[in-house]
Amino acid sequence: MITAGIVGATGYTGVELLRLLAGHRQVEVSLVTSRELAGTAVASHFPNLRGRFDLDFSEPDAAAFGECDVVFYATPHGVAMQSAAAVLAAGAKVIDLSADFRIRDIGCWERWYGVKHQSPELVAEAVYGLPEVHRESLRQASLVAVPGCYPTAIQLALLPLLEKDLVDASRLIADAKSGVSGAGRKAATPYLLCEASESISAYGLAGHRHHPEIIQGLEQASGGCAVGLTFVPHLAPMIRGILATCYAPAREPDACGGELLQQVFEERYRDEPFVQVLPRGELPATREVRGSNVCELAVSWLEAQSMAVVLAAEDNLVKGAAGQAIQCMNIMFGWNESEGLAGIGLLP
Amino acid sequence: MITAGIVGATGYTGVELLRLLAGHRQVEVSLVTSRELAGTAVASHFPNLRGRFDLDFSEPDAAAFGECDVVFYATPHGVAMQSAAAVLAAGAKVIDLSADFRIRDIGCWERWYGVKHQSPELVAEAVYGLPEVHRESLRQASLVAVPGCYPTAIQLALLPLLEKDLVDASRLIADAKSGVSGAGRKAATPYLLCEASESISAYGLAGHRHHPEIIQGLEQASGGCAVGLTFVPHLAPMIRGILATCYAPAREPDACGGELLQQVFEERYRDEPFVQVLPRGELPATREVRGSNVCELAVSWLEAQSMAVVLAAEDNLVKGAAGQAIQCMNIMFGWNESEGLAGIGLLP
Amino acid sequence: MITAGIVGATGYTGVELLRLLAGHRQVEVSLVTSRELAGTAVASHFPNLRGRFDLDFSEPDAAAFGECDVVFYATPHGVAMQSAAAVLAAGAKVIDLSADFRIRDIGCWERWYGVKHQSPELVAEAVYGLPEVHRESLRQASLVAVPGCYPTAIQLALLPLLEKDLVDASRLIADAKSGVSGAGRKAATPYLLCEASESISAYGLAGHRHHPEIIQGLEQASGGCAVGLTFVPHLAPMIRGILATCYAPAREPDACGGELLQQVFEERYRDEPFVQVLPRGELPATREVRGSNVCELAVSWLEAQSMAVVLAAEDNLVKGAAGQAIQCMNIMFGWNESEGLAGIGLLP
Amino acid sequence: MITAGIVGATGYTGVELLRLLAGHRQVEVSLVTSRELAGTAVASHFPNLRGRFDLDFSEPDAAAFGECDVVFYATPHGVAMQSAAAVLAAGAKVIDLSADFRIRDIGCWERWYGVKHQSPELVAEAVYGLPEVHRESLRQASLVAVPGCYPTAIQLALLPLLEKDLVDASRLIADAKSGVSGAGRKAATPYLLCEASESISAYGLAGHRHHPEIIQGLEQASGGCAVGLTFVPHLAPMIRGILATCYAPAREPDACGGELLQQVFEERYRDEPFVQVLPRGELPATREVRGSNVCELAVSWLEAQSMAVVLAAEDNLVKGAAGQAIQCMNIMFGWNESEGLAGIGLLP
Repeated sequence: MITAGIVGATGYTGVELLRLLAGHRQVEVSLVTSRELAGTAVASHFPNLRGRFDLDFSEPDAAAFGECDVVFYATPHGVAMQSAAAVLAAGAKVIDLSADFRIRDIGCWERWYGVKHQSPELVAEAVYGLPEVHRESLRQASLVAVPGCYPTAIQLALLPLLEKDLVDASRLIADAKSGVSGAGRKAATPYLLCEASESISAYGLAGHRHHPEIIQGLEQASGGCAVGLTFVPHLAPMIRGILATCYAPAREPDACGGELLQQVFEERYRDEPFVQVLPRGELPATREVRGSNVCELAVSWLEAQSMAVVLAAEDNLVKGAAGQAIQCMNIMFGWNESEGLAGIGLLP
Repeated sequence: MITAGIVGATGYTGVELLRLLAGHRQVEVSLVTSRELAGTAVASHFPNLRGRFDLDFSEPDAAAFGECDVVFYATPHGVAMQSAAAVLAAGAKVIDLSADFRIRDIGCWERWYGVKHQSPELVAEAVYGLPEVHRESLRQASLVAVPGCYPTAIQLALLPLLEKDLVDASRLIADAKSGVSGAGRKAATPYLLCEASESISAYGLAGHRHHPEIIQGLEQASGGCAVGLTFVPHLAPMIRGILATCYAPAREPDACGGELLQQVFEERYRDEPFVQVLPRGELPATREVRGSNVCELAVSWLEAQSMAVVLAAEDNLVKGAAGQAIQCMNIMFGWNESEGLAGIGLLP
Repeated sequence: MITAGIVGATGYTGVELLRLLAGHRQVEVSLVTSRELAGTAVASHFPNLRGRFDLDFSEPDAAAFGECDVVFYATPHGVAMQSAAAVLAAGAKVIDLSADFRIRDIGCWERWYGVKHQSPELVAEAVYGLPEVHRESLRQASLVAVPGCYPTAIQLALLPLLEKDLVDASRLIADAKSGVSGAGRKAATPYLLCEASESISAYGLAGHRHHPEIIQGLEQASGGCAVGLTFVPHLAPMIRGILATCYAPAREPDACGGELLQQVFEERYRDEPFVQVLPRGELPATREVRGSNVCELAVSWLEAQSMAVVLAAEDNLVKGAAGQAIQCMNIMFGWNESEGLAGIGLLP
Repeated sequence: MITAGIVGATGYTGVELLRLLAGHRQVEVSLVTSRELAGTAVASHFPNLRGRFDLDFSEPDAAAFGECDVVFYATPHGVAMQSAAAVLAAGAKVIDLSADFRIRDIGCWERWYGVKHQSPELVAEAVYGLPEVHRESLRQASLVAVPGCYPTAIQLALLPLLEKDLVDASRLIADAKSGVSGAGRKAATPYLLCEASESISAYGLAGHRHHPEIIQGLEQASGGCAVGLTFVPHLAPMIRGILATCYAPAREPDACGGELLQQVFEERYRDEPFVQVLPRGELPATREVRGSNVCELAVSWLEAQSMAVVLAAEDNLVKGAAGQAIQCMNIMFGWNESEGLAGIGLLP
C-alpha cells in the first residue's frame, strides 16, 4: 500500500482520479490540495464521493507531498513545472496530467503555451505516458507526462500505419470530436447546456496546443520522418468521449488492403490490455467506453480512394486522462497494469 | 465462488447485472440465456463487455439453471412465474427482477398485469427484496422479488414518516421523474432520441403497475393503516436516474419540524450502506448516483404548508434494479452487503 | 408600423424577443441596448439573427427610448423600476419582462428581492400581463408586468378550478420542471452541460421568488380566499420548456369528476388563442410547444384519491416570457392577438 | 394561392413541410396522404400542428393529386418513381424529396438502391433542386429532385473550390456529422435515446447512398473532371443539424491563401438568400441554423498543410430537406424565393 497526493483535484480529471483510485487496492489517497477549497470536504464538492472519501482539501505544501509515494498533478499547465522538482527531490514520483512535460522541444512548448518553462531540465527526464509506446521507459520513470486526450486517441489510431510505413505521412488528417468535459469545469458561456447541447461545431482551426504533441509522437513512430497532419477538433453535445476519425492515404495502394490493415492493427495491439481492435466491419462508439480505460480502434480500407480510415473511441477523462495516469502508475510501481482499471464501462 | 445464471439478459437490466457481477469476487456468471440471441456472443450484443466476458447466449433450459447456485430473471413479467418453481426445485436460489412475485394479493396482481398467475403458491414464499425493510427475511430467502425502480425510491422516501406516524397517510403524493432507460431497450417510437430528448412529459395518469406495489409497502410501514397515494410518473430526457419528489402533509404540524424530520431520517438509515441522508439544506440530483447503488434522500419541512417534502434520487438500473438484486444476493449468501457494489458513481 | 426598443437584450429572453419581433408586421425594432456590448452588432452576439438584423447594441439612454412607441425590459430585476417612469413620461408604453412590477404588495416584493422598490407608485398602475385574466385591463395599459415562466404555467393550470371553487385551495401542490434556459445565459457552473445534462434535481425548497406571485394570482381567482400552495421547482436536462404538474384535492369529491373537469377547462379557455385544452386522455409534452406561444393543458380526475391533476406545458422563453410580452403588446395596441406569434413549434 | 398535396407526410420531413407551408402565403395544403394513418387527423399525429391544421390523412389517390398544383413526395425511395408520371400527366408539378430522381445514371442508381427504376425517362427530365446551382432550370421545371441532406451541405462547401479549380479534386474528404432526425422516425434500436444520446459514432464506411449523388454534383462543378471523395458520415447525439467538415488540398499552394479563399466564397454566394459565408475566423455551429433554411459556410486556409478546410452547417430537415423543397417551389412558381422561409432559427 502506497500513499498518493493529488494537486488541484477540483476539476473533472481530479474527481475521475479519485473515483478510480478509490477502487485501487495498492493506493491510499492521503492528500488532496486546492487553494480555493482548502478546509472543505472533498466529498461535499464531488457528491459521488460522499460516504466514500473522508479527506478535506488542504493547501498545496511541497513538504506534505514529499511524504507521498506518488503525486498526481491535475492542474492547468504551468503549475507542475514550478513544484515538481521539489516533490521529486523529496522522494515522490510525479505523474503530471497537464501539458508541462509533454513536449521535448522547449521552444515549441513556450510558443504554444505562451509562458517561459520553469523546469526545462525535467522535460528531458520525463517519460511520455503512453504505455503502448513507452512501457519499458515507464518502468524506471520518476516523472511521467500523461498525454492529452486528443493525442492519445490519434496516436493510437495512426501509430501502426506509420510504424509499418504503409501511408503517406505527409497527408494525414485527424477529425476529432470531443465531449464537453474536455473543456474542464470552468464556468464559461460556450459550455453551458443551453449553448453546447443540441449542436456540433469545430474549433481551433487556427491551431490547437495538442497539435505539436501529436506530431512529436507520430514522427517518432515514423522513424523521424516529417509528418504532415491536419487536425480539426470539434465540440460534440455530450459529456464524455472522444471519437477521432483519421484519414491516411496509402503509400502504395496496390500493396495495401483491408485484410492487411486489420492484421497490422491486431498484431500491434495484441497484448495491450486497454486497446481493443474491433473485428472487421464493426465500428466504435464513444458510449461503448464510457467510464472505462479502453480505447476502441477500427481500421477500414477504402479501395476506391486508396485510403485507410481509422476510428478511435475513448473516454477523454479515463484513457484520455485519469485512467491512463493510473495505468502509468501501475507500470511505474510494477503492479498489474489493470489494477484499479478493471471497471466495465457504463452502458447505457 | 458460486455460479450464477441470468435469464433474458438482453435488456438494460441484464447488461447492468453483467457489468456489476463482473466485479463481484464471489460470483462467476456461468449461463446467460436468450431465445433470440442464442449462439451469439454476449459481448457482441453489449460492446462494453467486449474482452471482459466470454460467454455466448444460450437457449433457456431449466436443467442448466439447476446447476447454478443462483438464477436472476431479467425478463418481462410473466416469465419467472412459469419456470421459477423448477429452478428452485433443482436447488438454485432465484432472484426475480420482474414483477411476478412482488404483489402478495394475487387478484390485485392479475388485474394489473392482465394474465393469470402461474405460481400463486410461490408468491407467499417470496421475500420482497428491499433490504432496508426485509433484511432479516432475505437471509433465509430462496426466492426474492426485487422491487421496481419507482417503488424503491418512493418507499425509501416515505417509510420513515409512516413508521413514525408523522404524516397523514391518506394524502401522500409522489411525483416521480425517470430516465428513458426505465422503458427498456425495445424499439418504440416514444423512446427515440428525436421524441424523448429535449422534452418532459407525464404518463400513467390512468394508473401505473407500480402503484399497488408501492401501496403494499407503505401500508405495511403504517402498521396496516390504509394509505392514499397519488403517484404520477414522468419521462425525463436523460438515460438513467429517478428523482421522486414526495409530498406528505404533517399529521400534527406543531409536533413536526425540520430538525425532527432530519433526525428521523438519519436514525432510520444510519446503518444502511446504500442510503445516504443528505445534510439539511442539500438536495439530491440523479447525476450524483449514476452507476452506483446509492439512494440519496433529503427531507425538507415547509412550515407554511405544514408539509414534509422528501426527495429521493437513485439510478433506476442500479438501486432500482440490478444493484439491488445483487445487494439481496449478498444478504442471501451471507456476504458483505457491499460486495460488487462498491463502485463509485460516474460524475460527470 | 410602430418602433420598439429593448433594454438589456443580451440574454435568452432578449434574443427570443428579437426572433419573434422580426416576424411581426406592425413593429420595427429601432433600439437595442446593452451597456457591455454597446457598439457591437446584435447579430454577432446572436448568430441566428445574422443577415436578419442590422442594429448595433447601444448604451441605455432614456431620451432615445422616449422616441420609441414601446419599450421592452428584458433585464434582471431592479433595472426597470429605475427608468420606467422616465420612459413612460416620454410617451412610450412599457412592457417589463422582469419582476419589478408583478407583485402589488411592496413589502412582500422587497422581502423577496432584497432591495428597496424605487417606483412603488408605478406598481399600482401596472397591469399583470396574463391575457387570459387581464385582457380588458391590458387594452388600456401603459405599463405591463409580464408574468414569470412558472407563474404562467401554474396559474393557467389552476385558475379554472379555483374560479369554480371545485378544489380545496388550502392544499394545492405544483411540482414544476424547467429547462435550463430558465436560469438565463450567465456562466455559472450548475448550468454547464457537464453538470446539468443527464440529471434532474429540485431546488428552491427554502422558497422561490415566483411563489408570492403565483399566490397573488390564485387568491384573486379564488375571490380573495387564502391559498395554500406547495411549489417545488426542478431543473430538467433540456434547453427549453416547463412542465407543471399540479395537484388539487376536490372540495367535494362526489360533485367532481373527469367529465366535469374537462368541460370546465374547455369552457374557460374556449376563446383563448394560446391555450390548448387537450382532449381527455391525452397528455402534454414540452416538445409539442417548443418555440411556440401555446400553453397545453390537460386535466385528469383521479377518482380513488379525489384528486384533480392538471398538467401545463409551455415554452418558458415564449409563453413564459417573450411570446407573452408580444401577446400583451398586441392587445395594448389593438392588433390581432396572434400577430407575430403564429409560428408553429419546432418538432422534432 | 395554389393548392399543395403531400405524399407520405408521416415522418420528420413531412411534419417540417407542414410547419413551413403553414406560414407560406401562396400555398394551401389541401391533401396529405398516408396509407396507414388514413382517416386520422394530421394534428393528432403531430401535436405541434394542433389547432393549426384541420386536415385528415387520406389514402394516396392519383386523381386527387391531379387537382393539386404541386405535389411533394416525402416518402422513402421507390414510391415517387411509381406515381410521379401520373401526377405530372394530371397537371401538377412534382417536388420529390426522396432519392428517386437525383442520380442521372440509372445503372448507378439501381446499384445503390437495389431496385429497378420504374421511370427512367423522368430522370432525364428532373431538375436537381439545389438552387445555388440550378436556379435557372428550376424556373421551368415540372419535376424537381430535392438533394439529400449530406449532399446539400457538402456540395455548397466544395463547389466554389472546384469551380475555380483551386484544389486537387482527386483528394477530397468530407467528414460529416448528422443529428439523429436524419435517420427518420422509424422505431429502430440504434436511434433510441438510450443508444444514440451521449455518444458519437461513424457509419457507412462501406459506402453510403449519398456518395454518388455528391460525386455527380462535384464533377459537374469541376467541368467534368473525375472527383475523388472520401465521405464518412457520423451520428451525433442531437436531434437536428448537419456539420460537414471538408478537407481539400490546394492544387498550387503558393497561389492559394486565406484571403483568396474568403473572397472566392463571398463572391460565389453573394446573392444567395440562404447561404451565409461567415466572416474570416468565425466558425459555424448547427445551433445557429436550427429551424432555419440557412446554410452557414466558413473557409479556413491551413498554410502549413496547404489545406483548405470548409465547414458547412445546416438544419438537415430544413435546408437539407423541407426548406430546400419550398425554396425550389418558390422558384418554380416565380415567387419571392424566401416566401415561407423567413423564420429565424430557434436559439437557444
